[in-house]
Amino acid sequence: MSDLDHTHDPDAASWVASANDPATDFPIQNLPLGVFSVEGGDRHVGTAIGEEILDLTVLEAEGLLSQAVPPEILQATEINPLMTQGAAVWRSLRHRLFALLDASNGELRDNNDLRERALVAQVDAVLHLPFFVRSYTDFYASREHATNVGTMFRGPENALPPNWLHIPIGYNGRASSVVVSGTSVHRPWGQLKSPEEAAPRFAPSERFDIELELGAVVGTATALGRPVTVVEADEMIFGYVLLNDWSARDIQTWEYQPLGPFQSKAAATTISPWVVTREALAPFRAPTPQRETPLLPYLVESGPGNFDIDLEITLAPEGGRAATISRTNSRLMYFSSAQQLAHHTASGCPMCSGDLLGSGTISGSEKGTYGSLLELSWGGKEPVELAGGQGNRTFLEDGDTITIRGRCRSDTARAIGFGECCGTVLPARPYPGLSGA
Amino acid sequence: MSDLDHTHDPDAASWVASANDPATDFPIQNLPLGVFSVEGGDRHVGTAIGEEILDLTVLEAEGLLSQAVPPEILQATEINPLMTQGAAVWRSLRHRLFALLDASNGELRDNNDLRERALVAQVDAVLHLPFFVRSYTDFYASREHATNVGTMFRGPENALPPNWLHIPIGYNGRASSVVVSGTSVHRPWGQLKSPEEAAPRFAPSERFDIELELGAVVGTATALGRPVTVVEADEMIFGYVLLNDWSARDIQTWEYQPLGPFQSKAAATTISPWVVTREALAPFRAPTPQRETPLLPYLVESGPGNFDIDLEITLAPEGGRAATISRTNSRLMYFSSAQQLAHHTASGCPMCSGDLLGSGTISGSEKGTYGSLLELSWGGKEPVELAGGQGNRTFLEDGDTITIRGRCRSDTARAIGFGECCGTVLPARPYPGLSGA
Repeated sequence: MSDLDHTHDPDAASWVASANDPATDFPIQNLPLGVFSVEGGDRHVGTAIGEEILDLTVLEAEGLLSQAVPPEILQATEINPLMTQGAAVWRSLRHRLFALLDASNGELRDNNDLRERALVAQVDAVLHLPFFVRSYTDFYASREHATNVGTMFRGPENALPPNWLHIPIGYNGRASSVVVSGTSVHRPWGQLKSPEEAAPRFAPSERFDIELELGAVVGTATALGRPVTVVEADEMIFGYVLLNDWSARDIQTWEYQPLGPFQSKAAATTISPWVVTREALAPFRAPTPQRETPLLPYLVESGPGNFDIDLEITLAPEGGRAATISRTNSRLMYFSSAQQLAHHTASGCPMCSGDLLGSGTISGSEKGTYGSLLELSWGGKEPVELAGGQGNRTFLEDGDTITIRGRCRSDTARAIGFGECCGTVLPARPYPGLSGA
Repeated sequence: MSDLDHTHDPDAASWVASANDPATDFPIQNLPLGVFSVEGGDRHVGTAIGEEILDLTVLEAEGLLSQAVPPEILQATEINPLMTQGAAVWRSLRHRLFALLDASNGELRDNNDLRERALVAQVDAVLHLPFFVRSYTDFYASREHATNVGTMFRGPENALPPNWLHIPIGYNGRASSVVVSGTSVHRPWGQLKSPEEAAPRFAPSERFDIELELGAVVGTATALGRPVTVVEADEMIFGYVLLNDWSARDIQTWEYQPLGPFQSKAAATTISPWVVTREALAPFRAPTPQRETPLLPYLVESGPGNFDIDLEITLAPEGGRAATISRTNSRLMYFSSAQQLAHHTASGCPMCSGDLLGSGTISGSEKGTYGSLLELSWGGKEPVELAGGQGNRTFLEDGDTITIRGRCRSDTARAIGFGECCGTVLPARPYPGLSGA
């Protein structure tokens, strides 16, 4: 696991003034990676700094990163070429960017021409999917979430599946439906059947939901037939994003036996645009919760595998104001991302650069800390009140905008954040070939 | 669905003599696409013709395909650039290749220099994965298989899940573990727990199995939020391969509730190296089986969606002879690949060129027609005798070589085949970080 160095110094400041605002998600200690474009321009790789983006594609072309990274890896429209390089290069890039943005360093600060070309205001930029998502896997790492959902789907006596305390349960999701924050999502069609109905209907989902998750981004690959240890898995993770795994609960209930969720999870999965590096998160390491049963040796950790990230969900009705509907923390994950990744390789399954691992919905033990509307409204039976007299919700309504935020705080480190992971629900489209649909 | 034309004429012959052998899988009526290399050479796109490969990368570079396909799409190490072109280009290429190989056409036959450069003996070539597998989805389309497995996993009273007759049940598999025929597979490690054991163990699978499937290869993509009809889905399919979905039954039993199979299916999935085009299979269309309950309108077919492909599995012990252990036919699929693909898009899930859709294990109604050892040995209780006094099998032993073959026969069409889909089981490797493992 990563050690702290001068790039984690809480007193470090940047000559980019907005990076020194205590409220920013992107101080000089963060330096997340993303992909952006300005109107009429190509996609470039950048790092967020305060309210600006530092254009790494331009910096590399100008030779300012030549000592830090191999040639041409930032002349790309995705960060995958950087991610395949491994932890030593990631750290080297971080150190170089820290130096270039440090308040005391004039190299870029005093080069007016280059500084103007390399700094772009975030408000002027469009953010794109930061990496090619090779595969997407979704886990089930919150004990409280698994217990809540299990209670609703299978009854309290079968709430936590017998394997749950032993295995980081996961399933393969659909990489092609991963979208970047800001992408609207049409309400999906599917087969729906309530227990009272004799046969399924085909209709737009009536129980469209969210799932608050942390996404781990795999940087380096493994070969077929070559499992890795938890320590090796941790080193393979380039960074983390916020993730909303949109879920059609009514489609899920009818389809998921016996092979798991499929179309219920395929409408879209939204991720935040900035990949916060594992290195930046090092000061916020937190242990996984105490275990009820010992883990099998291949899953045992040698250090704190979780991160202490405060997470929050807001819901804004169409034309309304954002109301907070949940607050939780990623330290609740029973299995860390590194444990999930190690398990993912156990069979010899090869992992790829750009694989995205969703943590599973992160829920706390109290109602205001649940990571899905399914839990917050307890299966639709207890509607969630929206602040400001904006009515209530069981599941999502057309026009609702969901925003997830994440921020790390500590007494000994500078707070860093993830930016926003947001999306708006649009009405179902007419279905092709169905008259009247 | 495709119409027949002169490329399906059963009397057509090629100047490549071996293509006229009645026993070949690759007569001029087939023309499957694949990727090959000869020693020291780059990967090229080719078509199998008798015992030869026609090098399409060379033919295109020489200008012989310029009227048939857009420039440069065969200067590639995968057939994805061809597959993205759509059905009109696929047909145009087929017609051009048929013309070039037709016994009466001297254009290539009489050009000694080019013919020698463009024809490679299959025995001299290495075959590679023919396409970049963007995603891999595995369905569950054989009623007999679902009933058999359901009986063993959940008891006869819950054998066929209540959704099964309504939904083409499927789950997302792992694209990165798809390998080409001939790749050996190490026995996977995983968590195992029999009902008698109090807690899981971590060990190499003791019930490693095969699944005989047909794989549909998606050629053209769909956009997020844009479902397609069954007719449109059929047109999107470029072709078909044989597929062996290696399955660790003991890992599966313990891990699959509630989110479906994961590491039990991730050790490897083997496909045959030649993609037999939908166009080549047109004479072998067959209806899906009679339905017990009507399908929802979005899944209704307008014509015969299956194919009549005789399928066979052989098992050869290490140093032994191949013994046939099952014979079945792909016309048993309750849902066609086009229906599966249409359902895959129902939620708005975007499909990509290079998506691979496994049919699910294809089993008939009698014991010698089952597509897995799980069924053939009825959960290990009734070992399968291997012909020639070679002992018996419940599940796979180290050194076993499994080969799947597929061949289409008809009174009115020239028989075509898929070649081989084979793989050998190697012993489990030592597991990293585990002492004594």
